[in-house]
Amino acid sequence: MSGPKSPARVRLSNSEQETVGALGEFGLIDRFVSRIGAAPGDEVWSGDDAAVFSMEPQRLLLTTDVLVEGIDFDRNYATGHDVGWKTFAANVSDIAAMGGRPRRAVATLCLPSTTQVAFVDELLDGLLAASERWGAGVVGGDVSEADRISVGVALVGNAEHPVLRSGAKPGDAICVTGSLGGAAGGLLALRTDVEGVAELKRRQLRPVARVEEGVVAATAGATAMIDISDGFARDLGHLVAASGVGCEIEIDSIPVDPALADLAELIFPMEAALAGGEDFELLLTIPEGSLNRLSIELNEIGTEVTRVGTITDGEARLGTTSLEQWKEGGWEHLRTQ
Amino acid sequence: MSGPKSPARVRLSNSEQETVGALGEFGLIDRFVSRIGAAPGDEVWSGDDAAVFSMEPQRLLLTTDVLVEGIDFDRNYATGHDVGWKTFAANVSDIAAMGGRPRRAVATLCLPSTTQVAFVDELLDGLLAASERWGAGVVGGDVSEADRISVGVALVGNAEHPVLRSGAKPGDAICVTGSLGGAAGGLLALRTDVEGVAELKRRQLRPVARVEEGVVAATAGATAMIDISDGFARDLGHLVAASGVGCEIEIDSIPVDPALADLAELIFPMEAALAGGEDFELLLTIPEGSLNRLSIELNEIGTEVTRVGTITDGEARLGTTSLEQWKEGGWEHLRTQ
Repeated sequence: MSGPKSPARVRLSNSEQETVGALGEFGLIDRFVSRIGAAPGDEVWSGDDAAVFSMEPQRLLLTTDVLVEGIDFDRNYATGHDVGWKTFAANVSDIAAMGGRPRRAVATLCLPSTTQVAFVDELLDGLLAASERWGAGVVGGDVSEADRISVGVALVGNAEHPVLRSGAKPGDAICVTGSLGGAAGGLLALRTDVEGVAELKRRQLRPVARVEEGVVAATAGATAMIDISDGFARDLGHLVAASGVGCEIEIDSIPVDPALADLAELIFPMEAALAGGEDFELLLTIPEGSLNRLSIELNEIGTEVTRVGTITDGEARLGTTSLEQWKEGGWEHLRTQ
Repeated sequence: MSGPKSPARVRLSNSEQETVGALGEFGLIDRFVSRIGAAPGDEVWSGDDAAVFSMEPQRLLLTTDVLVEGIDFDRNYATGHDVGWKTFAANVSDIAAMGGRPRRAVATLCLPSTTQVAFVDELLDGLLAASERWGAGVVGGDVSEADRISVGVALVGNAEHPVLRSGAKPGDAICVTGSLGGAAGGLLALRTDVEGVAELKRRQLRPVARVEEGVVAATAGATAMIDISDGFARDLGHLVAASGVGCEIEIDSIPVDPALADLAELIFPMEAALAGGEDFELLLTIPEGSLNRLSIELNEIGTEVTRVGTITDGEARLGTTSLEQWKEGGWEHLRTQ
């Protein structure tokens, strides 16, 4: 519950002081369920043993992510809304990286009894705002007591032709959507109380998953795809390892988030771009011949795509360095700046 | 990691003393992934952004349950295998209560770094044993650090005609599968170190979900169904409330677990049967005319079904008491025995 309050909210109402312990388990469930809202058509959401829904008969996708206080988020700078949004968005990003669309989700909340109900309400706000943003209803969930807050989401999606990590072929172009390093810059700014750099902080707190971009890439012929959650170098490593290929990356072509220039005294922008995690951009490979179509179609939905290198049958290299060396040193180096 | 060890295992190997902290996050993920095994056919399980699978185009079911140490289980008497099994079985039971079949699951493990790896291995053993038992593969998951152990499962299932809680009609027979109260008796025996009563303890630690029974009931024409996880009285309350009906229950017809006779000095068997949770039996309603078919078909798969009352358009009553009174007092009374 950090962050500025408007003057009208400076005096806490009773509801803002109320804790989860006072609400009780069933009170908490009621609060969750009442927020989920009505199921469309003949679907059944919360209130039965399991949710019921249908989707077009494509291949099904299933993923889960859990965020834990003190490990994955810090309430000194993240509001409940931020935490709920990010947990949902991280799951959506995994579906996007398959070229799929998110459809329905369940959520679990584990909360200390001392948690303020107002924080829980914010958290549900964030979860449901993200759920609406990507058209993937939260259809149920579970709550339990715990020592610290954790939020889990499991998300079902579908795709006509899922794009795996393992399909990259020598000669394919390697591309990334948007820009890199912003989320790591935002994290540093939040942790060290840097003023301003709002866009970098937003990238850390309210990430946007690239669903339409993933669908466009799948349709345009992407051979492999992954979302950048662990950092460009690590996720590229996952992709080339799964595909059994090598790569050459031109460091100068990496689309470094321009807003990182404002943090240049604290962080090397290129290092944030290569090693920083949680950008939730898509890293994909595609045959040379399909690159033009991909670029045009992504530009049509307002998203830049940058070619950063080529898949090879040799070693995996990032500039003049082997990718292995980068993966070992990159992130730790960044953290100890 | 309680429970008897065979003599050959009394001397702990290094692996049994190793902790999650020593393993690290990636080591823990590797351990999880290596246990998941190979995906059948053209499915993709762990190792990509999301799992990929197909199912026949029926209606989809989605549920989740999380079990937290100290709240939902106690390592003083539950092994890792017990915890993993029960988390999975509780989710399967929710799918069973829709008349559906469980298909694919994801699991989340939140663990203190001091957790012994041997406990985690047992936990994965239990999760995967239950997953195999019900033919619903664990296709992926997530791990995180936490102050205490929690295990979450999200499970996708499907059903041709899901049976909701809300379809009970006045005149329908009310039935339960198997027997009631055993899980509550087992919990009491475990907490108070009662020797013997192995079957009651098994019902508490390694519950069995009634999947085939749920499918049979759906096919035979069940109008409403719920699994008994909160206790007969409470779950009956959920069912009649969702259906907007009343009921008459003949207390003498309740199938009390006969093994509770061994705990008669500690617990009222009938109270355990009515108020004790986690039996994971099915409570269902069905038109009088379909009762015979249901009984024959369930007996064919070795499961007893007992008619315990009738849906009415009047008050919800349990014997001579209103169900509301029962729900208020039942469980607490049981706990303070």
